[in-house]
Amino acid sequence: MQSISGGVCAAKGYTTNGVLCRIKPTRSTPDLALIVSETPANAAAIYTQNLVQGAPITVTKSHLQNGKAQAVIVNSGNANTCNADGIAVAQRMCELVQEHVGIAGGDVIVASTGVIGQPLPVQKIEAGMAELVAGMGRENDKAAAAIMTTDTFPKQSAVEFTLPCGTLCRVGGMAKGSGMIHINMATMLAFITTDLAISSEMLQQTLKECAEGTLNMVTVDGDTSTNDMCCVLANGMAGNAEITGEGAALDAFRAALMTVLTELSRMLARDGEGATKLLICQVSGANTVQDCRLAAKAVVASSLVKAAMFGGDANWGRELCALGYSGADLDVTKIGVRFSSAAGDITVCENGTGVPFCEDVAAKILAEEEITIHIAAGNSEHAATAYGCDLTYDYVKINGDYRT
Amino acid sequence: MQSISGGVCAAKGYTTNGVLCRIKPTRSTPDLALIVSETPANAAAIYTQNLVQGAPITVTKSHLQNGKAQAVIVNSGNANTCNADGIAVAQRMCELVQEHVGIAGGDVIVASTGVIGQPLPVQKIEAGMAELVAGMGRENDKAAAAIMTTDTFPKQSAVEFTLPCGTLCRVGGMAKGSGMIHINMATMLAFITTDLAISSEMLQQTLKECAEGTLNMVTVDGDTSTNDMCCVLANGMAGNAEITGEGAALDAFRAALMTVLTELSRMLARDGEGATKLLICQVSGANTVQDCRLAAKAVVASSLVKAAMFGGDANWGRELCALGYSGADLDVTKIGVRFSSAAGDITVCENGTGVPFCEDVAAKILAEEEITIHIAAGNSEHAATAYGCDLTYDYVKINGDYRT
Repeated sequence: MQSISGGVCAAKGYTTNGVLCRIKPTRSTPDLALIVSETPANAAAIYTQNLVQGAPITVTKSHLQNGKAQAVIVNSGNANTCNADGIAVAQRMCELVQEHVGIAGGDVIVASTGVIGQPLPVQKIEAGMAELVAGMGRENDKAAAAIMTTDTFPKQSAVEFTLPCGTLCRVGGMAKGSGMIHINMATMLAFITTDLAISSEMLQQTLKECAEGTLNMVTVDGDTSTNDMCCVLANGMAGNAEITGEGAALDAFRAALMTVLTELSRMLARDGEGATKLLICQVSGANTVQDCRLAAKAVVASSLVKAAMFGGDANWGRELCALGYSGADLDVTKIGVRFSSAAGDITVCENGTGVPFCEDVAAKILAEEEITIHIAAGNSEHAATAYGCDLTYDYVKINGDYRT
Repeated sequence: MQSISGGVCAAKGYTTNGVLCRIKPTRSTPDLALIVSETPANAAAIYTQNLVQGAPITVTKSHLQNGKAQAVIVNSGNANTCNADGIAVAQRMCELVQEHVGIAGGDVIVASTGVIGQPLPVQKIEAGMAELVAGMGRENDKAAAAIMTTDTFPKQSAVEFTLPCGTLCRVGGMAKGSGMIHINMATMLAFITTDLAISSEMLQQTLKECAEGTLNMVTVDGDTSTNDMCCVLANGMAGNAEITGEGAALDAFRAALMTVLTELSRMLARDGEGATKLLICQVSGANTVQDCRLAAKAVVASSLVKAAMFGGDANWGRELCALGYSGADLDVTKIGVRFSSAAGDITVCENGTGVPFCEDVAAKILAEEEITIHIAAGNSEHAATAYGCDLTYDYVKINGDYRT
């Protein structure tokens, strides 16, 4: 497997573009994106678990009931959620794809991200469609920019891998954050494309499996958004025999999808609103993988841990505290805590009790932009990794007046 | 019932004091407090639900097994948690009360608050005991100051009420916050005294009931601390016949305790680390009181809601979003949202959809220091109130480098 460029256009048979419609009047970068597959594709998606779900989620769920899709239309600047005309607007966005590209509206995935509860001015999208469609090509950079809200950089990843049968395949994707991101998925938008031939059922199953260890392990602020989804299109243009069950071919795809989703998850966490540091928590040795996941997520989700990391303060009691309320089944008298970064490695707690350490060395380690918090929770073979970021003044600033 | 002064000394037969021991070397205000009842008292307590529990919690639980206590010793500046000698130090603090006051160590409640994982220098407490005991009296202001950590003001409350039999009773208390405060109790220290005669069993039951609607509905940052507790001493010096079951006398006490705990809860939330505003969320009409509580707590715990309130931004989609992931059983198409404060009242959402409102009026309402978010969730008679605060730059500042 190797990293390649191209994002959602890395795989065969996909084109994309992004244009500026000014859905939010002050916007100066693209805010509408379209991804089109040359041929019909099998499709799968996972969605937010929030009871309040945006109209695009409702429409996409309906369109994906048959496991097929051929295009994705997505806007930023307005979430089209909690609006009386929300469903009609989301459906209209799909119809616009039908009118301009000739793909049936029922084969279109629709997504929106931005402010909740303000009507989406769909006429702005109507006005932008001609330019959007005219420019379709390998414009993955424009598309990745178009889905950004408070993101500070676009998030793309792609890999190439070879199936056991010798066929070369690609998986690529793009994602956006960066607030309202929390565990249990659907906490961001992520669009993945592949030219692999795979059944909708196996695609759904593999997406779910891979997201549990990646997108579902990202937390920025504990808020699970109303709108977010990760979808995958698989158009089969790589030419392999369709994957319909477990085996070496599925394993190869799973590894590729894990790589892309892990990469996007790291970018989402690093670009958390106001973040200056990527925090990674690796928990090993708890009784079950679920305990490891609960523990890892609680640590990177703790406001106190996040603020301490912003300040570069090795206040490990906060990790212990978070582990204690995580809901994970842990023997707190056995916990070890270690911090590492490019600047080194330091153990600060063993068997649930502090050990003497050099504050200067700890400060240097915690001054880096990527910090890993290692939690040793026992002797089992289970492990999990969660991704988060520090809590900074800028998070408060960004969210204190988001709408203006 | 009427408010009176005196805090933990408002009830008959209690004395207290606070002195400076410099447990944290830079401290310049009292950091050690003692409360003593003239006579043995029935006692009850509730504790943190964190798996990591401070040594004082372990020792206090053991001492309260018989439902009796006569004194409380508490220090700030060090949590005595995750230390190898923690239990021995907590026991030593109780022994010091025995040596200096003559109350058996087993009848002493001990509590500590501050940094986790640094040994507590108990010799500093030993050195301060003589001064502490010599000054015992109606020094409730000193005691309330001694238990503060990052609190910006001491928190005390007391009321006087009359039992149906005509006996005058008092309930008073003090509490400290102000970070690491979250739902599910024991997320702060609160010490309550009363001169009521009541059995330990009824005292425990009433404390638990009252805390569920008050202390357990306060959240500052979602972190449940390792150390915190609320305990009540009831020494019976009011002279009433001991309350041993339900009835009008217990109802009178319950109302008084609710008043004191509500008052302390509001102070704790208002003094959340870095807070500039008290946020109150009142949810009514959900199917059960538990649903109302889950919903109310999710709203005041949401970082996005808290940051929006700091910015005075009526971005009600964030309330909807929090309700959606709260875990409460809600029909999100029926939700109404209204903001109120001393400056007025404004409805921003009905039936899960935004309604037109004047942004200028909303901004004036949200500029006040106490804001109530009203959530109408249906037609049932159930309701709940949660207490929180806004998320500010100063929260990040306070927590970015807490240890120095």
